[in-house]
Amino acid sequence: MIATVHPLRGPGRAPSLDPLLSLVAADMNKVNGVILTRMESHVPLIPELAGHLIAGGGKRMRPMLTLACARLVGYQGTRHHLLAATVEFIHTATLLHDDVVDSSSTRRGRRTANTIWGNSASVLVGDFLFSRAFELMVEDGGLRVLKILSRASAIIAEGEVAQLTAQRRIDTGEERYLAIIDAKTAALFAAACRIAAVVAERDEAEEEALDAYGRNLGIAFQLVDDAIDYASDRGTMGKDAGDDFRDGKVTLPVILAHARGDEADRAFWREAITGVRNDEGALVQAMGLLERTGAVDDTLARARHYGRRAIDALGRFPDGRAKAALIEAAEFATSRAY
Amino acid sequence: MIATVHPLRGPGRAPSLDPLLSLVAADMNKVNGVILTRMESHVPLIPELAGHLIAGGGKRMRPMLTLACARLVGYQGTRHHLLAATVEFIHTATLLHDDVVDSSSTRRGRRTANTIWGNSASVLVGDFLFSRAFELMVEDGGLRVLKILSRASAIIAEGEVAQLTAQRRIDTGEERYLAIIDAKTAALFAAACRIAAVVAERDEAEEEALDAYGRNLGIAFQLVDDAIDYASDRGTMGKDAGDDFRDGKVTLPVILAHARGDEADRAFWREAITGVRNDEGALVQAMGLLERTGAVDDTLARARHYGRRAIDALGRFPDGRAKAALIEAAEFATSRAY
Repeated sequence: MIATVHPLRGPGRAPSLDPLLSLVAADMNKVNGVILTRMESHVPLIPELAGHLIAGGGKRMRPMLTLACARLVGYQGTRHHLLAATVEFIHTATLLHDDVVDSSSTRRGRRTANTIWGNSASVLVGDFLFSRAFELMVEDGGLRVLKILSRASAIIAEGEVAQLTAQRRIDTGEERYLAIIDAKTAALFAAACRIAAVVAERDEAEEEALDAYGRNLGIAFQLVDDAIDYASDRGTMGKDAGDDFRDGKVTLPVILAHARGDEADRAFWREAITGVRNDEGALVQAMGLLERTGAVDDTLARARHYGRRAIDALGRFPDGRAKAALIEAAEFATSRAY
Repeated sequence: MIATVHPLRGPGRAPSLDPLLSLVAADMNKVNGVILTRMESHVPLIPELAGHLIAGGGKRMRPMLTLACARLVGYQGTRHHLLAATVEFIHTATLLHDDVVDSSSTRRGRRTANTIWGNSASVLVGDFLFSRAFELMVEDGGLRVLKILSRASAIIAEGEVAQLTAQRRIDTGEERYLAIIDAKTAALFAAACRIAAVVAERDEAEEEALDAYGRNLGIAFQLVDDAIDYASDRGTMGKDAGDDFRDGKVTLPVILAHARGDEADRAFWREAITGVRNDEGALVQAMGLLERTGAVDDTLARARHYGRRAIDALGRFPDGRAKAALIEAAEFATSRAY
C-alpha cells in the first residue's frame, strides 16, 4: 500500500525535521552531555543498557521540542538543558518498560534491551532512569516543572494500563482510543513543550498554547505510526509491518475498518484481534479490508487534523526561525513517507 | 533449625511492634485514607491491583517509621500523613517490580499481583504508583523531601540492578552484599525516617540521626529475612524456606558458609548458586553446611549489631513513648521468631 504524501504547506520541498535539528543543534549537544553524564552509575549494567537505547538512533524528538519551544519564547537561560535531558530519561524509561510489556524484539531496527539483557534488567534500569529524571528535576528546583512532569508521568502510566486493558478488545471505540494515546503518547509531548514556557516565565496562555502544540503533535505522530504499521517493512522503519496486528493491538486503522465493515468483516476483526486467527494470511486479508474501507488513509487524515491544530496553537507566537521549524515539524509528522 | 531469641533488652516480655502500632494508630488511619484516595484512577485495574498488595497484610513499616519519627521530634503539623503515604507508594511500586524480576508467586502468604494479573500489569501499575508518589511529594511542596526521596528511589533501583548483576555469583563478598542491601532496602527506611526531621525543621544532626536509625534498622530487617529464608515455612512467613536458595540469591548466610567452608563446601555452593544443583536434596545439604558453619546464627548476630546501632542513633532524642516504641521496634526486628 502506497499512501499519498500530503504536505500541509503546499507543493515544493517535502517537509523535514532538518530546520528543527539545525535550530537546536548547539543546545542539543549540551543536552547530550547531560544525558551521558547523568546516566552514569557505579553499577556498569545501567549505563550499558540505557546507552543502548539512548544511543540507538532515536530522534530525541521530545528534548528537541523543549529546546525549540524555549527558543520560540525567547528563553535566555540554561535550565532547559537539564530539563530536556529529564524528558528524554522519562521517555527512555517508558520505552524500556513498553518493550517488556509488549515482548518486543526490535525497536528502530535494533534488538531491544529486553532481548539482550532480559526483562528484569529492562524493568530495573527503567526504574533507575525514571528516578534519575526526578533527581534532575529536583536539582533544577522548579516546583511547577516538577508538577507538570510528575503529572505527565502518572498519566502516561495510566494510559499504558488502559491500553493493556483494551488489548485484544475489538469493542474499543475511537474516543476511547484517542483518550489512551492522549495519555500514553501525547501527555509527554505536551509536557516537554509546556515546560519551556515555565522556565521562560511566560503566562498561562503561552503555557497552554505550547501544551496544545505538543499534545496535538504527539497524537499526530502516534496516528501516523499506527498507519505505518500496516505498510512498513523492517528495513526502512525498524518495525515489521503487522506488528500491532499480531499483538492484537486495536489501533485507529482497525477501529475504522471494524466500524465501517459488514458483519463478516467484524467477525474477521474479532478473530484477528483476539488472536484466534492472526497469521500472515489474516494479515493480507486485513490489509485488503483496510484498503477497501479507506481506514489507513483516513487515519492519516485524522493525523493531519491534529497536525493542523498543532500549527494553529502556535498562532500567538512571533514569526521567526523557531516557529517555522516547529510548524515544519508538524508538517513532517503527518507527511512521513511510508 | 531453631534459633535462640536474643532480645536486646534483657529478659521479660518479648519485644514487639505493638507499642509502635499503638503510638501511630490515629495518624495511620489518616495515612490509610490518603493511600486509598490517591491510588484511585479512572482505569479500574490500577486500584484493583494496587489494592491487592497494599491491603495484603503488609506491616506498613516504612510509613509507621515516618509517623513515629515525626512524633519523636515533636512535629505538630500534618505533612507527614501525605509523605508517609508517598513512602508506602514507592515501597509498593518496588515490590510490584521485584516480584516480576524474581518471578515470585507468593508474598506474605498470598498470590503475587504478577501471578494474578500478569507481569505487564505489575510493571505498569508499579510505574503509576511511583509517579503518583512524586505527584504527592510535589503537592507537599518541600524540595528537601523531594530531594531525599528521589535520591532514595534512584539508589533503590541501582541496588536492584546491582543485585541482579550479583545473582548466581558466589564470589559476592560480605562488603558488596551489604552495599547492595544498603541500597535496595535500607535507603528507603533511612529516607522514611529522615523526612520526619525535615518536616519538623530539625537540624542536620537530627536528620542524620534519624537516617542512621532507619538505615541500620533496614539492614537488620533484611539480614533477619535472609536468615528466615533458611528456616521458614509458608504457613508462618508467607514465604517458602529455600526461596532464596532456589533463586540462586547470594545472601549473607550463604556468603558466610562459603567463606568458612572447605574446598568441597565451596564447590557445593558454586553448583547450588549457579543452579547446577539446587533441588530439595541440595537444600537439605545447604542447611547442614549453614548449621555447621554457624552461618545463620552469625547472620542474626550481624543483624543485632545493626539493631544496636539503630538504637544508639536515637541517643540524642528525649526519652518518652516515641523513643521507647522505636527502640522496641529495633529489638523486635532482630528477635523475630523463625
